[in-house]
Amino acid sequence: MNVGIVGGGQLARMLALAGYPLGLRFQMLDPAADACAGQIAPLIQGDYDDEARLRQLAEWAEVVTFDFENVPAAAARALERQTVTFNPPAGALAAAQDRLYEKALFWELGIPTPPFATVDSLEELRAAVGRIHLPAVLKTRRLGYDGKGQRVLRASEDIEPAWRALGGVPLLLEGFVPFQREVSVLAARGRDGATVFYPLVENHHRDGILRLSRAPLAAPELESEGWDHARRLLERLNYVGLLAIEFFVRDDRLIANEMAPRVHNSGHWTIEGATTSQFENHLRAILGLPLGSTTALGHSVMLNCIGAMPERAAVLAVPGAHYHAYGKAPLPGRKVGHLTLRAEHPDALQTGLDRLLPLVGLEASEFD
Amino acid sequence: MNVGIVGGGQLARMLALAGYPLGLRFQMLDPAADACAGQIAPLIQGDYDDEARLRQLAEWAEVVTFDFENVPAAAARALERQTVTFNPPAGALAAAQDRLYEKALFWELGIPTPPFATVDSLEELRAAVGRIHLPAVLKTRRLGYDGKGQRVLRASEDIEPAWRALGGVPLLLEGFVPFQREVSVLAARGRDGATVFYPLVENHHRDGILRLSRAPLAAPELESEGWDHARRLLERLNYVGLLAIEFFVRDDRLIANEMAPRVHNSGHWTIEGATTSQFENHLRAILGLPLGSTTALGHSVMLNCIGAMPERAAVLAVPGAHYHAYGKAPLPGRKVGHLTLRAEHPDALQTGLDRLLPLVGLEASEFD
Repeated sequence: MNVGIVGGGQLARMLALAGYPLGLRFQMLDPAADACAGQIAPLIQGDYDDEARLRQLAEWAEVVTFDFENVPAAAARALERQTVTFNPPAGALAAAQDRLYEKALFWELGIPTPPFATVDSLEELRAAVGRIHLPAVLKTRRLGYDGKGQRVLRASEDIEPAWRALGGVPLLLEGFVPFQREVSVLAARGRDGATVFYPLVENHHRDGILRLSRAPLAAPELESEGWDHARRLLERLNYVGLLAIEFFVRDDRLIANEMAPRVHNSGHWTIEGATTSQFENHLRAILGLPLGSTTALGHSVMLNCIGAMPERAAVLAVPGAHYHAYGKAPLPGRKVGHLTLRAEHPDALQTGLDRLLPLVGLEASEFD
Repeated sequence: MNVGIVGGGQLARMLALAGYPLGLRFQMLDPAADACAGQIAPLIQGDYDDEARLRQLAEWAEVVTFDFENVPAAAARALERQTVTFNPPAGALAAAQDRLYEKALFWELGIPTPPFATVDSLEELRAAVGRIHLPAVLKTRRLGYDGKGQRVLRASEDIEPAWRALGGVPLLLEGFVPFQREVSVLAARGRDGATVFYPLVENHHRDGILRLSRAPLAAPELESEGWDHARRLLERLNYVGLLAIEFFVRDDRLIANEMAPRVHNSGHWTIEGATTSQFENHLRAILGLPLGSTTALGHSVMLNCIGAMPERAAVLAVPGAHYHAYGKAPLPGRKVGHLTLRAEHPDALQTGLDRLLPLVGLEASEFD
């Protein structure tokens, strides 16, 4: 069975690593000749809106999916027409690509979000600040990721500089949520409508970039709330594949931040930490196969490696630690890999974590 | 870091799948253009004794290893001269390639074996039968695997036909061991001499081909005996990498059958069933990295898929089941993949096993 992936980054790479044992073949489409998934599967080099390349991928593959949410909507729709199965559906992509549509979808389904307002001029921004109050976050509606395309407004003198930095494209002002923690829900829905939900994940960001995820978070009520939200989204979107939703937690309630219609960084712990990884379940879903158990195997923590990989020997000397290099060249701010630490008991996890944190440039005191 | 593998079968393929997350690159050397590891890593097509191809592999790689024990001794020695590290060592290969040297090594280290005698003529065979008695097994000293190159002698009228079938190459007659069970020990030794041992594995063969492995086998005394035998072999051979030893169990003692200086079919359960898989620990060992924990995660059973793969959906519908296709064309008698079933409790394992056994052509009653 041939699976085409639009995008050839680390998510495509990990999808292929999960899919080879299932007997699948992969091809990726990516504009970069050195896209890291190309190290382990054939790469079609081409822009995401290159119709000839998209057709080439669709003709080879029986199923097409993607590894990032900024696949051009026109390309997604073209693939949907050409391929028997293109999943997750283009409608989910479209919603995830525009923060306004995404927020509207959350509201329609009764999923709480921060207050928000569209902003297309400096006057609209001033008016929105008047309604939403500060602090608030000004975001581009499209093409934001890892904290890019965002400005935090703390005082009225931040308004004009933020407008100068981001203005000119459709924007959204969001009320800043003074959250106690950030969590994410990972869920998968099969072609037959069956759904599975992973244990709740706690996330820690720095400068808008995910640095650490921990699972399972023992918070049954939050988890159940998150699963309910995810279930409504999956059904509303007639979703097939893995879906990730990031939430803020305030006053023990979930407030939706954003969703990603794909495998997600906060689910990398599932490779070793769950019976079935998010990558395998995404593939099972889009191929129409039975979904696998999402049960956590003990306790896991995932640490992103930003800029460069830590020394292999230092990581592997930590009992229960796993090393995941993406085959990417070092570059400041770039996600080049992740580490996962798994243990049966939380105490053992903490002992190992204390050794791993300095290897990825974090201090133990930040994550007690 | 570049790793070359002599041989491009399923073991090379699973080594690469374990090694990509470590940031390794692979190339395989195999005479077959369609060797299955070539689906996921570049393949150099060439005979194992093709000096130019071996040099090409050695020049590209920083570390060279192999995925089957019949690498020609001359090729192994040439690689040892050319490469900074070729492991497991050529001496271990040489011992594993000749059943006589292997038996001599076991005896030297005090590891019990069946009685045996070299046979180079029909007269020697008759004399050996006189000493060892029947039943006995006549085996070629070299190039036997999966029951090939063997004849069981049950009565004196079997002697001549067995000689006609196998005679002409150096042979060994081994006393037939009326065993209660078959087990294997998997162990790894690092470049620094550190060793790790996997939980004892119970194996079931049919027609000389491994069909089912189960781990861990709760037999602490046998396990400790097996680990002692393995430790002596690892040290005597100055071994680096993963070593597998197959034993018969008779009267609660281990009798060595054979060893394999490589990752082993009876260790495939470690991919999901142990903290660190045999494939990753082999790579860690030959790269000089710290060895990983061999702790079993619950209970596992591995089923070989012989001839053809079972239907994916039927396998994946079984909770805790994992599917491993090697990307090989179906062919009677060929190992084309394996399934692993993992569960926290033996009862759950048995329930799933009852569903998987018929999918691989086995009957539940055989494996109670």
